[in-house]
Amino acid sequence: MTTQERMTGVLTPVVMPYTENLLPDAQRLLEQCRWLLSQDVGIAVFGTNSEANSLSVAEKIALLDYLVANGIDPARLMPGTGLCALTDTVQLSAHVARLGCGGALVLPPFYYKAVSDEGLYRFYAEVLQRVGDARLQIYLYHIPPISQVPLSLSLIERLVTDFPESIAGIKDSSGDWDNTRAMLDAGWDNFQVFTGNEKTLLNTMQRGGAGTISATANLNPADIVELYRNWESDSAAAMQEALSEFRDFIQQFPVIPALKSVVAHYRNDDNWLRLRPPLVELADAQRAELTGALEERGFTMPGIG
Amino acid sequence: MTTQERMTGVLTPVVMPYTENLLPDAQRLLEQCRWLLSQDVGIAVFGTNSEANSLSVAEKIALLDYLVANGIDPARLMPGTGLCALTDTVQLSAHVARLGCGGALVLPPFYYKAVSDEGLYRFYAEVLQRVGDARLQIYLYHIPPISQVPLSLSLIERLVTDFPESIAGIKDSSGDWDNTRAMLDAGWDNFQVFTGNEKTLLNTMQRGGAGTISATANLNPADIVELYRNWESDSAAAMQEALSEFRDFIQQFPVIPALKSVVAHYRNDDNWLRLRPPLVELADAQRAELTGALEERGFTMPGIG
Repeated sequence: MTTQERMTGVLTPVVMPYTENLLPDAQRLLEQCRWLLSQDVGIAVFGTNSEANSLSVAEKIALLDYLVANGIDPARLMPGTGLCALTDTVQLSAHVARLGCGGALVLPPFYYKAVSDEGLYRFYAEVLQRVGDARLQIYLYHIPPISQVPLSLSLIERLVTDFPESIAGIKDSSGDWDNTRAMLDAGWDNFQVFTGNEKTLLNTMQRGGAGTISATANLNPADIVELYRNWESDSAAAMQEALSEFRDFIQQFPVIPALKSVVAHYRNDDNWLRLRPPLVELADAQRAELTGALEERGFTMPGIG
Repeated sequence: MTTQERMTGVLTPVVMPYTENLLPDAQRLLEQCRWLLSQDVGIAVFGTNSEANSLSVAEKIALLDYLVANGIDPARLMPGTGLCALTDTVQLSAHVARLGCGGALVLPPFYYKAVSDEGLYRFYAEVLQRVGDARLQIYLYHIPPISQVPLSLSLIERLVTDFPESIAGIKDSSGDWDNTRAMLDAGWDNFQVFTGNEKTLLNTMQRGGAGTISATANLNPADIVELYRNWESDSAAAMQEALSEFRDFIQQFPVIPALKSVVAHYRNDDNWLRLRPPLVELADAQRAELTGALEERGFTMPGIG
C-alpha cells in the first residue's frame, strides 16, 4: 500500500500572461498564483488552459524557477510536463521533481494518433525510469477531445500496478462521467481522481474523488473550494447547481480567451488579454458582452489585483 | 512574381535510427541520407514518418549540424520545423535558414484543435517575422489525419499573397486528391505543390505539381524518381500503377515500424528497428511476414548498406 500524502482539493490551470512581445510575463503570473493560493486553490500551471503547449520547455523551466524563488510553495504546484518528445518530457518532469513540486500533470505524447496502450505504457515507464527521482508524482492527463490520445482504463491499471509509488492520480477531462466513475470505482490504492470540470465535482467527491482541476477556478476559486469543503452539507446540491450554471455561462465563449478577458477586466489590466497564436483574443464586442454580463450578475473576484 | 528557384522532385521523411539508449543515431542517419541522395531523393528529415515529434529541438539541431558538417548539401534538406510552441518553431526554423537549407516543412501548431484561420495565419506570420531571414523558405505541411489541424485553401491564399517570397509551397498529406488538385489549380505564383503520397504523383505532375514527399521513398527511391522524371512518357501509367501497388502493400502494416523493419532487413542491421514510444516495433511474426513478402517479390534496395 502506498502511504504518501497526495495532492487533493481544487487546482487550476493558471492562465498565462504575455508581455507585449508575446514572451511569458513571470511577474503577472506570480501575482495570479499568489491570489489563487490565497483562495486555497492549487497551481496547475501549464495545463491546456494555460496555453502550456504554446511554450517551450526552457520558458516553462524559467517560469517555475521564478515562481518558487518568489515563495510559491512547490508542494502546491502540479505543472503540466507531458510533451510529444520523450526527452522533453523527461527534462521538464525531472526539473519539476527537483523543485519538489507536489505533482506533475502528464499528457500522453499527442502527435501520433491511434497509438497502442503498449506504446503509451512504455512512454510513461521510460519517463519514470529516466527521471529516476522518487519525488516525481505523476498525475495522468486524460483529455481526448484535445489530445486525441485517450488513456484507457486498462492502461491506467497497468501503470498503477507497476508504479504504485509514482502514478499518483489522474485528471479526467473526457467530459464523460461514466469514465470518471469507472476510475473512481476501480479501487486503485491511493489513486487520486480529479474531475477536469467542476460540473461533476459533487459526484466526484461522493464517490471518493480527490477534487477538481478546473479552468473556471481561475475566476471563481472560492466558490469551487466551498463546494469541495462542504460537499457533505445540505447545501451541496445548490452550490453544485450554481457552479454548473456559471461554467455553462463561461463555456458559451471560447474558453481560454474568455478566461483572460475576465482576468483582464477585474484586474483592470489589458496585458492579460494577449494570447500566443494559434489562439486569438475575443473580438471587442464579444468581450464586452462577456464582461457586461458578469457585471450584471454581480460577479466579483474578491482580493484580486 | 517570385523568381527564386524552389525545391522540386522526390523527397522523403528519412526514418530515424536510435542507439540502444533511444538517443538519435547521427551516424546511421547520415548513411541513410547519403544513400537517398545517391538515388536523387531529397532529405525531408523530421517529417511525420521520421518520428519528428518524438525528438526535442536540441536533438534536431544537433542532427542537422552533424549532417551538414559531414557533407550533406543543405540545398537538398527540407527539415520539419513546425512545433506547437511559437518559440520552438522560431528557434528551429531560424537554424534551418542559417544552415541554408532548401526549405522548411512547417506543421501548424497541433495541440489546440478547431483553431481559426486567423490564429494559424498569425502563427506563420510571427514565425517569418521573428526568424527575419530571407533564406527561410516555408513549405506548409497539411496532414489533417495526424495533426488534426487542417490548412484551408483560403488560409494558404492569404499566406501566399502576403509572403510570396517566403511561402514556397505545400506538402499535401490529406489523402484527398480534390484538395491537392484545388491547390494545383489555384494559380499561386511559383508555389510548389508536393503530394504526400506517390499514389497521386502522376496526377500531380500532370497538373503542374512539384513532385512528392513520400515515406515509401525510404525504400524504393529510384522507382519513384523514375516516374517523376518520365511522367510524360508512354510508360508513366504503368510506373504509377506499380508504385501504387507497392505503397498499398506497405500500408497494410503500421507504416513507421514497417519502414524501419525493411531498412533493418536490407541493411542487415537490427539497430534500425528501434522506435521511441509511443510508437512500437512490429511483432516478430509481422516483421517476418513483411520482409518475407518483399523477398518473394524480388524487392531490393540497390546500393544500400
